[in-house]
Amino acid sequence: VPAGELEPEPDRPQTLRTTRFEAFSDGVFAIAITLLVLEIAVPPDSADDLLGAVLDQYPSYLGYLVSFATIGAVWLAHSAVTEFVGRVDATMMRLNLLLLMVVSFIPFPTGLLAAYVGSEDAGRVAATIYGLTFLAASALVGVVWRYALHERLVRPDVPAITIRMLTKRLKPGLAGYALMIVVGLFRPILAVLGYLLIAVYFIVPIRHLKRGPTSPST
Amino acid sequence: VPAGELEPEPDRPQTLRTTRFEAFSDGVFAIAITLLVLEIAVPPDSADDLLGAVLDQYPSYLGYLVSFATIGAVWLAHSAVTEFVGRVDATMMRLNLLLLMVVSFIPFPTGLLAAYVGSEDAGRVAATIYGLTFLAASALVGVVWRYALHERLVRPDVPAITIRMLTKRLKPGLAGYALMIVVGLFRPILAVLGYLLIAVYFIVPIRHLKRGPTSPST
Amino acid sequence: VPAGELEPEPDRPQTLRTTRFEAFSDGVFAIAITLLVLEIAVPPDSADDLLGAVLDQYPSYLGYLVSFATIGAVWLAHSAVTEFVGRVDATMMRLNLLLLMVVSFIPFPTGLLAAYVGSEDAGRVAATIYGLTFLAASALVGVVWRYALHERLVRPDVPAITIRMLTKRLKPGLAGYALMIVVGLFRPILAVLGYLLIAVYFIVPIRHLKRGPTSPST
Amino acid sequence: VPAGELEPEPDRPQTLRTTRFEAFSDGVFAIAITLLVLEIAVPPDSADDLLGAVLDQYPSYLGYLVSFATIGAVWLAHSAVTEFVGRVDATMMRLNLLLLMVVSFIPFPTGLLAAYVGSEDAGRVAATIYGLTFLAASALVGVVWRYALHERLVRPDVPAITIRMLTKRLKPGLAGYALMIVVGLFRPILAVLGYLLIAVYFIVPIRHLKRGPTSPST
Repeated sequence: VPAGELEPEPDRPQTLRTTRFEAFSDGVFAIAITLLVLEIAVPPDSADDLLGAVLDQYPSYLGYLVSFATIGAVWLAHSAVTEFVGRVDATMMRLNLLLLMVVSFIPFPTGLLAAYVGSEDAGRVAATIYGLTFLAASALVGVVWRYALHERLVRPDVPAITIRMLTKRLKPGLAGYALMIVVGLFRPILAVLGYLLIAVYFIVPIRHLKRGPTSPST
Repeated sequence: VPAGELEPEPDRPQTLRTTRFEAFSDGVFAIAITLLVLEIAVPPDSADDLLGAVLDQYPSYLGYLVSFATIGAVWLAHSAVTEFVGRVDATMMRLNLLLLMVVSFIPFPTGLLAAYVGSEDAGRVAATIYGLTFLAASALVGVVWRYALHERLVRPDVPAITIRMLTKRLKPGLAGYALMIVVGLFRPILAVLGYLLIAVYFIVPIRHLKRGPTSPST
Repeated sequence: VPAGELEPEPDRPQTLRTTRFEAFSDGVFAIAITLLVLEIAVPPDSADDLLGAVLDQYPSYLGYLVSFATIGAVWLAHSAVTEFVGRVDATMMRLNLLLLMVVSFIPFPTGLLAAYVGSEDAGRVAATIYGLTFLAASALVGVVWRYALHERLVRPDVPAITIRMLTKRLKPGLAGYALMIVVGLFRPILAVLGYLLIAVYFIVPIRHLKRGPTSPST
Repeated sequence: VPAGELEPEPDRPQTLRTTRFEAFSDGVFAIAITLLVLEIAVPPDSADDLLGAVLDQYPSYLGYLVSFATIGAVWLAHSAVTEFVGRVDATMMRLNLLLLMVVSFIPFPTGLLAAYVGSEDAGRVAATIYGLTFLAASALVGVVWRYALHERLVRPDVPAITIRMLTKRLKPGLAGYALMIVVGLFRPILAVLGYLLIAVYFIVPIRHLKRGPTSPST
C-alpha cells in the first residue's frame, strides 16, 4: 500500500468531500427509512370489513416498526462513527458505499417478512433473510469503525475512553443478531421481536459516548 | 438518571450532531410528503371516459391535499421546535425518531382513506385511522417540545413569550384532532375537511412566534 | 395586516429558517424529479419482442423527458427567486408549500399522459391535465416572486435590472402554457412537445439574470 | 457567445448557487440509488418454497448490485468534478441536468434487466439498453468535466497533474462500456459482470486524484 493513499494532503484538507459524503449517506438513510411505508399495501376489496383487513396486516406494521428502528439505530451509529472520523480514504469510501447498499436493501426483506412471517416454513426463510441483512448492516458499521481506527482516521481530540466505549458497544449487536437468526429458525416472530430489542438497545446508549469519564459537566 | 446524560459537554458542543439530525429529519419530512403522490393511481382501462375516471378519484386528491398540508404543518412546527432547541440528548433523539416514524407512516392511511372514504362503514374505519395518525404526529411534536422545555434544552436567548406562545399553539391541534376523530365516526368526509382546517391553522401562525410582544421592528 | 408580520426581527435574522426551508424545498424538488422514473413500467410478458415492447412505450419516455425538464426549470426559477429573497414571512411560506404541492403532484399527470396520450379523446384529457399542472407550477413561482417583490422581501443589493429581467422572464411561460393547453385539445402530442420547449426556454436564460447590463466582467 | 455569459461576476460570486446545485445533485443521486430496491419484487404465492423463489430472483439482486455500484461510481466522479469546479455557467447547469436525467432513469433499465436477462433474445435487448444508459451517464460526466476545463471553470488552485489524471481516468470507462455493450449482444450476463467491474474500477481510484505527484505527505 503506498503511504500516500492513507495520508491526507496537509495543504488541501478533505473537509468538503467528507461533508458531501455525509450528506449523501444521510440522504440514503433518510430515503431508505421512508420507503419502508411502501411495503404496507392498502388491502383491496375490503369494504365489508376494513378494520379486520387492516388488523390482519399486523406483520406489515411489525416489519415497518422493526426496520424503522433498525435503520434509525444504524444511522445513529453511522453518524457517531463519521463524527469521530476526521478524514476519509478510498477504502473507507468503498466500505461506506457497501454499508449504504445493505441499508438501501432493507425494504426488500421487510416486505418479504411482512408477506410470509405467518407461514410455517416460509416464515423461517423470511426471518432468516431479514436477520442476515441486519447482521450485515451492523457488521459493516463495525468494519467502517475498526478500519477508521486501524488507519488512524479518527480525530486526535476524541478521548480514548469514548473510542473504547463505541468499539465495545458495537460488538453485542453482532452477537445479538447471530443469536436471533438461530431463534428465527424455530420461532420467526420471536426473532423479529429480538431485532426490535437490539435496535432499541442501539438507539439508547449512543449519546452517552459523547461524555468522557471525568466530564467537567457532571 | 445520571446528571451527565442531560448536560452537554462544555468543551465539545453538539452542534454538528444537531445539524445532521436536522438534515436527517428534513430529509424524512421531504420524502414522506413527496411519496404521497404514489398513492394516486392512474385509472386503468379508461380510454372511453378518462375525465370521468379521473374525477371519480376525488378522494385521492383530497387525501393528497390534506396529508400534504398536515405533513407541511408538522414540519413547520418541528422546525420551530428544533430552531429554539440548542442541544439534544438521547431521549430527545428517540422521541424525534418516534415522530419521524409516524410521519413516514402517513402515506399508508392516506391510501386507505382514498380507497375507502366513499364506503359506508369502511369510510369510518379509514377516517379514524387517518385521524389517529395525525393525532399521534401532533402529540409527538408537543411531547418533543415539552421534553425540551422540561430538560432545559431550549436556547436561553429565546424570549419567554415566544416559548409560551408555541406551547399554547400546539395544544388546540390535539383537541381538534380528537374532536374530528369523533366526527369521522359519523361523517368521514367532514372529518377529513376538519383535518385540512387544522393543518391550515398550523401553517398560518407559526411565523408569528418569532416576534416578541415589544418587537423593536414594529 | 399588522406591520410586524412582514418585518424581520432586527435582533434575530431568519437566516437559519430560510436555510432549512431551502433545504426542504430542494429535497422535495429532487425527490419529485427522481420519482418520475417509477411511472415507466417494465413491459410484462414481452420475452418474444422486448425491443418492440420497449419502443411501444415511447409516451412514457417522452413524459419522463418533458416532466424532468419542467421540474428542472421550475427548480432553477425557484432557486433564482429564493437566492434574491433575503427573508421569508408566513404568507410566503404558505405560497411556497402550495408550489411544492403542485410540483410533487407532477408524477401523477405524467403517468396519466404516458398511459393515454395515444388514445383519441383520452389523450386530450391527459394532455390538458398535464398542461394545467405545469401552468399552476409556473404561475405559483411567479406569485411567490411577485409577493416577495411587493412585500420588499428581496435583498436590497439585487440590482433593479436583474429584478426586472426575472419578472419579465417569468411571464412568457404562463402565456406559453395557456397556448399549449389549447393546442393540446386538438393535438396532444404537439402540446407535449410545446411543454418541452417551454421548459428548455426556462432552463437556458436563468443564469443570465445574474449579470447587470454594465457588468464589470464583460 | 457573449463573453459575459461565461464570466462570473467579480462582485457577486456564485458560491451559494453552486452549493444548492450540489445539494440538488446529491439528492437526486441518493434517491436514484435508493429507489433501485423497489425493482426487487416480493415473490407472490411462494409459501411452499420461499427460499427457491427468492433464489430464482438472482437477476434482481445482480441488477441491484451493478446499478448501485454504477450510480455510486458516477456520484464519486461527479463529486470530484464539482469539487474542482469553482463556478458554474448556464450551459454547465443544463449539461448537469442532462446527467441527472440519465442517472434518475437507471432504475428502469435495471428493472428491465432483472425481468429479462434470463431470456434468450430479450436478455440481449435488456443488457444493451442497460449498457447504453451507463455509457450515457459516463459520457455525460466526461462532457461536464471537459466543458468545465474548456471554459476555465476549474478552480485555479487545482494542480495540473490532478486535472490530467481525472481527464485520463474518465476515458477508459467509455471504452469499457462500448466493449461490454458489444459483449452483451452475445452474452448478456457477462456484460453485466463487466459493468460491475467498470463501476468498481471507478470507485477505487478517484481518491488518488487528490494527491499531486510530489505530495509533501508521502
